[in-house]
Amino acid sequence: MKTIQEIKMKYNVPADVVKSKVALYKQNLKEATNGTNHLMLFAGDQKVEHLNNDFYAKGIPLEDNSPEHMFKIASKAKIGVFATQFGLISRYGRDYKNIPYLVKLNSKTNLVPYDAVDPYSKAWLSVGDVVAFAKESGLKIRGVGYTLYLGGANEHEMLTQAASIVHEAHKNGLLAVLWIYPKGKFVKNEHDAHLIAGAAGVGAALGADFIKLKVPYNKKGKFDAKLLREVTVAAGRSGVLCEGGEKIDAKEFLSELYEQIHSGGSRGDGTGRNIHQRPLKEAVKMANAIYAITSENASLKEALKILK
Amino acid sequence: MKTIQEIKMKYNVPADVVKSKVALYKQNLKEATNGTNHLMLFAGDQKVEHLNNDFYAKGIPLEDNSPEHMFKIASKAKIGVFATQFGLISRYGRDYKNIPYLVKLNSKTNLVPYDAVDPYSKAWLSVGDVVAFAKESGLKIRGVGYTLYLGGANEHEMLTQAASIVHEAHKNGLLAVLWIYPKGKFVKNEHDAHLIAGAAGVGAALGADFIKLKVPYNKKGKFDAKLLREVTVAAGRSGVLCEGGEKIDAKEFLSELYEQIHSGGSRGDGTGRNIHQRPLKEAVKMANAIYAITSENASLKEALKILK
Amino acid sequence: MKTIQEIKMKYNVPADVVKSKVALYKQNLKEATNGTNHLMLFAGDQKVEHLNNDFYAKGIPLEDNSPEHMFKIASKAKIGVFATQFGLISRYGRDYKNIPYLVKLNSKTNLVPYDAVDPYSKAWLSVGDVVAFAKESGLKIRGVGYTLYLGGANEHEMLTQAASIVHEAHKNGLLAVLWIYPKGKFVKNEHDAHLIAGAAGVGAALGADFIKLKVPYNKKGKFDAKLLREVTVAAGRSGVLCEGGEKIDAKEFLSELYEQIHSGGSRGDGTGRNIHQRPLKEAVKMANAIYAITSENASLKEALKILK
Amino acid sequence: MKTIQEIKMKYNVPADVVKSKVALYKQNLKEATNGTNHLMLFAGDQKVEHLNNDFYAKGIPLEDNSPEHMFKIASKAKIGVFATQFGLISRYGRDYKNIPYLVKLNSKTNLVPYDAVDPYSKAWLSVGDVVAFAKESGLKIRGVGYTLYLGGANEHEMLTQAASIVHEAHKNGLLAVLWIYPKGKFVKNEHDAHLIAGAAGVGAALGADFIKLKVPYNKKGKFDAKLLREVTVAAGRSGVLCEGGEKIDAKEFLSELYEQIHSGGSRGDGTGRNIHQRPLKEAVKMANAIYAITSENASLKEALKILK
Amino acid sequence: MKTIQEIKMKYNVPADVVKSKVALYKQNLKEATNGTNHLMLFAGDQKVEHLNNDFYAKGIPLEDNSPEHMFKIASKAKIGVFATQFGLISRYGRDYKNIPYLVKLNSKTNLVPYDAVDPYSKAWLSVGDVVAFAKESGLKIRGVGYTLYLGGANEHEMLTQAASIVHEAHKNGLLAVLWIYPKGKFVKNEHDAHLIAGAAGVGAALGADFIKLKVPYNKKGKFDAKLLREVTVAAGRSGVLCEGGEKIDAKEFLSELYEQIHSGGSRGDGTGRNIHQRPLKEAVKMANAIYAITSENASLKEALKILK
Repeated sequence: MKTIQEIKMKYNVPADVVKSKVALYKQNLKEATNGTNHLMLFAGDQKVEHLNNDFYAKGIPLEDNSPEHMFKIASKAKIGVFATQFGLISRYGRDYKNIPYLVKLNSKTNLVPYDAVDPYSKAWLSVGDVVAFAKESGLKIRGVGYTLYLGGANEHEMLTQAASIVHEAHKNGLLAVLWIYPKGKFVKNEHDAHLIAGAAGVGAALGADFIKLKVPYNKKGKFDAKLLREVTVAAGRSGVLCEGGEKIDAKEFLSELYEQIHSGGSRGDGTGRNIHQRPLKEAVKMANAIYAITSENASLKEALKILK
Repeated sequence: MKTIQEIKMKYNVPADVVKSKVALYKQNLKEATNGTNHLMLFAGDQKVEHLNNDFYAKGIPLEDNSPEHMFKIASKAKIGVFATQFGLISRYGRDYKNIPYLVKLNSKTNLVPYDAVDPYSKAWLSVGDVVAFAKESGLKIRGVGYTLYLGGANEHEMLTQAASIVHEAHKNGLLAVLWIYPKGKFVKNEHDAHLIAGAAGVGAALGADFIKLKVPYNKKGKFDAKLLREVTVAAGRSGVLCEGGEKIDAKEFLSELYEQIHSGGSRGDGTGRNIHQRPLKEAVKMANAIYAITSENASLKEALKILK
Repeated sequence: MKTIQEIKMKYNVPADVVKSKVALYKQNLKEATNGTNHLMLFAGDQKVEHLNNDFYAKGIPLEDNSPEHMFKIASKAKIGVFATQFGLISRYGRDYKNIPYLVKLNSKTNLVPYDAVDPYSKAWLSVGDVVAFAKESGLKIRGVGYTLYLGGANEHEMLTQAASIVHEAHKNGLLAVLWIYPKGKFVKNEHDAHLIAGAAGVGAALGADFIKLKVPYNKKGKFDAKLLREVTVAAGRSGVLCEGGEKIDAKEFLSELYEQIHSGGSRGDGTGRNIHQRPLKEAVKMANAIYAITSENASLKEALKILK
Repeated sequence: MKTIQEIKMKYNVPADVVKSKVALYKQNLKEATNGTNHLMLFAGDQKVEHLNNDFYAKGIPLEDNSPEHMFKIASKAKIGVFATQFGLISRYGRDYKNIPYLVKLNSKTNLVPYDAVDPYSKAWLSVGDVVAFAKESGLKIRGVGYTLYLGGANEHEMLTQAASIVHEAHKNGLLAVLWIYPKGKFVKNEHDAHLIAGAAGVGAALGADFIKLKVPYNKKGKFDAKLLREVTVAAGRSGVLCEGGEKIDAKEFLSELYEQIHSGGSRGDGTGRNIHQRPLKEAVKMANAIYAITSENASLKEALKILK
Repeated sequence: MKTIQEIKMKYNVPADVVKSKVALYKQNLKEATNGTNHLMLFAGDQKVEHLNNDFYAKGIPLEDNSPEHMFKIASKAKIGVFATQFGLISRYGRDYKNIPYLVKLNSKTNLVPYDAVDPYSKAWLSVGDVVAFAKESGLKIRGVGYTLYLGGANEHEMLTQAASIVHEAHKNGLLAVLWIYPKGKFVKNEHDAHLIAGAAGVGAALGADFIKLKVPYNKKGKFDAKLLREVTVAAGRSGVLCEGGEKIDAKEFLSELYEQIHSGGSRGDGTGRNIHQRPLKEAVKMANAIYAITSENASLKEALKILK
């Protein structure tokens, strides 16, 4: 296997970015990754994906119930991009112009279990809508995102949408991030490294800039950075973002993140609950610590210092 | 949690209203809400949604059987908008030019139970059709409406249509109101506050100006304004309209409405049967009383005086 | 309830008829209804709807087996419009230029029972195709027709098509007639007055000019004009056309028709088998008698005289 | 019933052939039918419909396994049109420019039984594609063909495609031939005359120039020309082509064909296997004999002489 | 049956290649086949089709886990075309400009068994996207590929896409390769020669330049070149490419390939795992040996010498 450095060096502008948009694409990539090709993605699409479960419950500060909580964090913290739905950006964007946005183009609720009906999450708007909106509003939109479920009756529709979204994004100089999750009754273990590596390969074949994936578990159900190497190499020139998942202890989270990047070869992370399920000041510190590891090449120790 | 005042102050023009339509959007919002950001929506889409059940039955005045009854009320009473289907507006509009309309873009009948076939209600016409019609006819069309069912096999199609309708409305300076109802065999309790708050969050993520929702019940099956706070905060800058539901005693109705707004943080109501299932004069008074509470900041006492 | 006269007086040009087509719309309505707003529709779409059952069987004259039989009747008799499929109009139109046509845009066969598969009948061609054809061919096309089944898995598609067809027709100055039938396993009694009134309300909400409906039966399974009043009032400004149904005794048919209009408030009829399942001369007389009652304000006695 | 002569005389240009294409339509019809309005259609779409069963089996000459066998026959024999898929015409057309072609727009394989999944055969390309191809290639394309299955869950899609294809063909001066077969679990007897007459009526309502149908059987399971009369009259001005079916004795085939036309009122035939499942020379003679009866008004005796 | 030479001689430019693109089409065909009309296709679409199974497992060199391994092989070896997904070409193309590419337009994962849900693999992008990309990027794109599954509920959609893709490719001077596999619960034996010949005929009817097919087995489950003759003749002027399948012994592979072409009449091969599941140098030699037999008319002995 290659070293992480080798993989990173290969990274460059995909051939479907048209000549007139190469400079914009490079700028979006550079600014979103602080010039490191590592992306800290603040994931804020759970208002639809998990309804109100992630925002109003025991142990979650009351302020998280308002969508504006995430905008405040994204505005005050160092982040790569804040990924959320178009409608929220539209409603809060004029007051939060400094945030770098990534428009999450599709979302579905969690009302129907994955094994009851094959999941299908369709793009709400087109890349063209986003491009026109960015121009009209002057907001800093760095890219678009799309969730793709593999393994069900609607896989073909979602693969086609994903391919088209990545290509349209590139033609317009935007980054394209894919969330890729094998789902449904034929998927036995979502944390199996070999399966996740397969999903990574699909993302590579779709030409994604970054692919948000589940993290692989070993037989004891624990994250294992060694297993992640199959995944990050299989992803080729598409960067793997590890899913943040449920809120856990901050130190443990940062430690695992450091390992993902430095031992596993991941190129970033997509973190939501571990940031926004904290009061504003604490959330900002956590975001900054994550950013430091991901996009400022900080050591774990340096990152932990930020939390204080 | 924020106070109601704080939430209201944040309200402003969404970023996807294009520059050339900002003035029109502001005018539509101001006129529809009497400058209060609180909307009294007279709901008149039941000819399809409930077939003839709401218009011809024991206890309903005979005059309600004719669609014109609603136009007469809407024409003589103070209302925010009269929401009904395009075809009815088209057939009566020339004779009722003073009514402020909201075109309800989709509707389905109640013939098929929600748990037998996953509900799907598709937009009958496009926002572009409505915009062209408004221009051609000179009618006062303030916005468009769309019902979205969460939780079934067609959720993805309806989310996509809803997102597109909100965006197209904003691009044309129109208000967008979403009716959002979780439905189907995976929804156990439609009046659960946490579930309704989830639906509110979906509406916010879709960028709706107003979201019409069921009201939350406590364990005794009664409306509880405290529970409504989770919902109205989760809705962010989208205003929550409480569903009027079946006809009840006028005083009880107005009292609950007052509580919804002043304790629960709702930003209005969508009321149909509690208005049109009365003889014309009585219906006009009831509409005026509802409007007083919603959009004229009247006290309950003042509103009750109107009924006399 | 209003008197029939009141309802009729309200009738006027729908607001979605664009200014440049108002004169054409008025002309189409006037000529199709002989200036009475009552439409005699000669229904000739059964070649598809019932395959050859209505045209070749014991008791049906052999000449009815050829599609031309209907064109001969429509050409020689007084009728409002002859409703049939585009292909037949295309093949016989050059030889029957005097007939006023209504293009029935959709049709399905009767091979699959309604309770086995939810029925779906899709428009074969667009209103734009019809408009271009009318211009190119010079044929007198007064309007378009569409059958809508309520109550099944495809209701949403058909509602959307119906709304679009009515709107496109109006934009082009054409009349729009909807055939509306609740169908499928959740419909227990197709002749229930309250259900038919619901269908009438759907037609009104779709903006139809005329709505062809089943006739309501009382508990003894007989037509009852009093029950029809709920239906015709619920239809608002859209005129109700009563379905002709299976061939019955001519006198009985005309007597029932007279009652439908004068006691029930219907605005016409859609009759096929009771006309074309007779030899040419007899069929022409029957059509003339129906036309006399519907669009010439004839008494029953006058109409019966025509048959002789 | 009319005599065959009466029916034929009525035949003329459909009203949806636009003025500028009337001459081309007449030319296509005249050349395809040798001026007789009777069409000999050499059916060569079985490579898809029956996979390799009709081309490689015991009793079939080895040369029939190559698609070129059919082109050689079509090139050397007298035929009305050679109906086959676009791809084959595209690959062999440059070498067989003298053949009059009819592009069969849809086809399906026989892998799935008709009663297991409701059949759906979708148009591969549009009439516009064919028109552009004819112009670009200079090939003699006289028309297009489409198979329509009645009686299943996809009937509505196929009816809509058929109507559109016929109309587009006429607008471009091309002939339109429909293959119409009731299929699926609700069809008990595909050779029932009344059912086939129903299919003929559907073809007439769609405006087809010719309709390829199964032949009716009597109670003993034998073709009966008298039964065919219901079918050919019900088809109106659309000509009925009888299906050739499995290869049988040449004399028997020609005798039945003669009866179909002269007693049954058919206007031609669609024959594949009875031609191409013979060595080239024999196949050419058989095609010529069929053509003689269909489009040269030959007697059976004259036709049989050609075989020698 | 014809000799291979006869079949080859017939090969020429399909009639749907427009005049202005004939030279480009000829160039693409000549360069892809080394002027022999025999195509060596290096198949690299398994990242999606088989997820990571073909790239990371016991017995596969670690370097195969990175998508770049295939690009290195394709760049250093003699090949006809390298067939892979658009996204991979987009990400690696700028660094591997010398590779002749074929864009595989559709792909699906192997998560759902073929007999559980009828397979449907939809085109990710259009031929127009590929044409614009080729022009913009300057990459050598010789053609497009599409996998077609026969025998399921989605067959009609895939046939239509396949026909459209072949036609669009030809209109733009590109080669069109179809992978055709009968699948699903009605297919008992995928290696049956008669069934594969049927699939070949479908490819011919679709106008494909090359058709990738399974190889026929005899009753003992072994490849038999004699059986292949039915297939290659049934394919007409479309060239049959034999599927490479699982990695086997190099000598055995080359020997079988030689037989396929020289006894079976195939016009090339589609090989993936038998090439890329080897270390780079070995893989390059294997590709060169395959190319020698396929497109350089080498003897088996000459080819084997290359391996050393």
